[in-house]
Amino acid sequence: MNCAAVLSAIRAAGTARVTELVQATSLSRPTVTAAVSTLMADGWVEETEAPDLDLPRMGRPARVLRFRADAWHVLGIDVGPHKIYCAVADLSGRVVAHARRDVTAASTHAELLDQVEATMRTALDQVPITAADVAAVGIGTPGIVDDRRGAVVQAPSVPGWSSLELASLFRRGLDCPVRVENDVNLAVMAERWNGTAGDAENLILVQWGARIGAAVLVDGQLHRGAHGAAGEIGFLELEEEPQGVQADGLGPLESAVGTAWILRRARSLGDDESSDAAAVLAAAAGGDPRALQAVDEACARLARGLASFVSAIDPELVVIGGSITLAGDVILAGLRRHLGSRTLVEPRLELSRLGDDAVALGAVRLALADAERRLLDVYATPLPVEHP
Amino acid sequence: MNCAAVLSAIRAAGTARVTELVQATSLSRPTVTAAVSTLMADGWVEETEAPDLDLPRMGRPARVLRFRADAWHVLGIDVGPHKIYCAVADLSGRVVAHARRDVTAASTHAELLDQVEATMRTALDQVPITAADVAAVGIGTPGIVDDRRGAVVQAPSVPGWSSLELASLFRRGLDCPVRVENDVNLAVMAERWNGTAGDAENLILVQWGARIGAAVLVDGQLHRGAHGAAGEIGFLELEEEPQGVQADGLGPLESAVGTAWILRRARSLGDDESSDAAAVLAAAAGGDPRALQAVDEACARLARGLASFVSAIDPELVVIGGSITLAGDVILAGLRRHLGSRTLVEPRLELSRLGDDAVALGAVRLALADAERRLLDVYATPLPVEHP
Repeated sequence: MNCAAVLSAIRAAGTARVTELVQATSLSRPTVTAAVSTLMADGWVEETEAPDLDLPRMGRPARVLRFRADAWHVLGIDVGPHKIYCAVADLSGRVVAHARRDVTAASTHAELLDQVEATMRTALDQVPITAADVAAVGIGTPGIVDDRRGAVVQAPSVPGWSSLELASLFRRGLDCPVRVENDVNLAVMAERWNGTAGDAENLILVQWGARIGAAVLVDGQLHRGAHGAAGEIGFLELEEEPQGVQADGLGPLESAVGTAWILRRARSLGDDESSDAAAVLAAAAGGDPRALQAVDEACARLARGLASFVSAIDPELVVIGGSITLAGDVILAGLRRHLGSRTLVEPRLELSRLGDDAVALGAVRLALADAERRLLDVYATPLPVEHP
Repeated sequence: MNCAAVLSAIRAAGTARVTELVQATSLSRPTVTAAVSTLMADGWVEETEAPDLDLPRMGRPARVLRFRADAWHVLGIDVGPHKIYCAVADLSGRVVAHARRDVTAASTHAELLDQVEATMRTALDQVPITAADVAAVGIGTPGIVDDRRGAVVQAPSVPGWSSLELASLFRRGLDCPVRVENDVNLAVMAERWNGTAGDAENLILVQWGARIGAAVLVDGQLHRGAHGAAGEIGFLELEEEPQGVQADGLGPLESAVGTAWILRRARSLGDDESSDAAAVLAAAAGGDPRALQAVDEACARLARGLASFVSAIDPELVVIGGSITLAGDVILAGLRRHLGSRTLVEPRLELSRLGDDAVALGAVRLALADAERRLLDVYATPLPVEHP
């Protein structure tokens, strides 16, 4: 128990002297010193090499202790129908390695799972750690997720993905806690942690790429909804006649504004140069009139759906993330103009500064919570320490 | 302080013996007895006339004490562009008198305020209490409300109503706390308190009459939004071209589905008998085909807007209140059919059992919170008791 208290104090402070730990924990100096010895022997704490030079040196300088964030690692994995992204992070949340893989030919969920495993191996191969050094895993997936069971409940965009007991499958291969969460919910956690969201308590994140989803923060908390389906903007039906899920698994709105539509629309306007959607978005950022028109039409359609979300939730901030951000401020200007008179009050509108890895970062954040629990559990129980 | 603790314990228990109050407060018996004497002298507590007959009678029966809920009263006032409803309730929330007035000719906010005052007087005249016996007032109003300032910020449906310092105006006439809240927000509080909402933690209440508004509960808490504008469904723009606020002050969706539209539509379908919207709604409940068609078309339009709110929030329950409930289950069946494939998950759908007075009931609930604070303040401070 004393070790856990001292460890928490060192983590909170970053670096600390024994005197400071005595103050922070209200434990006696001998108790703190003994705990520090145990934590150093177990590899969680080390002496820093740079003692504070600002203090006058009298006698032996006091030891400065530091938490070894690299003693254990977590994985954050973004599993999508178009790409897999795996980040390896230390216990401070710093990403030390990552691997990315485009998914094109995964026709079954088994194939997709094989590709996830391969991506994970590629990421782990870059660092001198093994699967046994993984303290916890977070996984982001499209669709509606039962977060307690760690299972995908509904995922129209990935064939065979629905009803998958994702967390159980991963736990079999990795002997550690595995959590599964909707990908856009993870992206909004990453925004709060590291992104543009800052201290906005009520916000909508729209993750806009080939697919489109939204996540909702209410009073600083992720709002999952009664069935985990809050923010499913991609399946909004804007027209009088419902369109339903499309043959390619896309919802009506994502089918009407996703990057695949933008590419098709730019081509139909005579853009023969852009090889893919990313090229169209870059061309729009560069002022190409055909690309600009395609992007603007998509903004007009998205604004119709977004306006109803804004009316329901009245957020202070809307953050736009995903690959659409390749078009830059053109997106903000277009959305602002088309949202215009559609809402009674106007939220601030910003582009995400997180790139391709927002979901994986959020998954790292999710895994860190489990890792922290495990770390404190090591010393909270009277069992012999087995790890690391 | 002891009086406040004993008073709280009696209120919580309903009725209580001194022995039970000693247990509940952890105060000594003489202290509790002294506090009870003070509370009886001040009029907050009385002996009930029915001692418990189940207990064997040995010696003098123990006194059974009861909180005098009628010692003080609160007002809940619904101020709308079409009607004013004032409820007088005792401290248990029981409505002891009410007055209702249709508003037709209020062209200025000053005229509307005069009518509010007249309605208030009519309600108070029915009971033997004066304005000085009013402990607190809650007011519901359409529009966006700054609840801390008690001011209306934006109210397109009432001419001259925007920017009104409503709470300040009322506090001048009544020497008690006055709170102002959006009317539909109050209706949802009434639903949670006394209505069909039960223990649903995530719900949308749609208040549907001449106007239409919605209120949102997230995790059991009223979600006001960053600007107090969450749930403004009446101003949703469903079409590609925004319609804006109509000449009559109605928002685009309320103009397209409100009871005035339903009346016009029934007439255009050949209904010459219905004298007003209420008659059309009653005819629909009775199976009249023209009324049914008009109501069904309105349900189809509302379902389009409601589906986007459901997608954003994913509530477990949607409650439909307001005068539209005169049409009964026809509304639920119509909304269910038209919501159909428009949302990924289906919330439960229920009609409000609260009638015309839902907003006033919510306003009573709001005022009771202030009255309770005042009641405990009487004994929490060392000042001499001045009231009642």
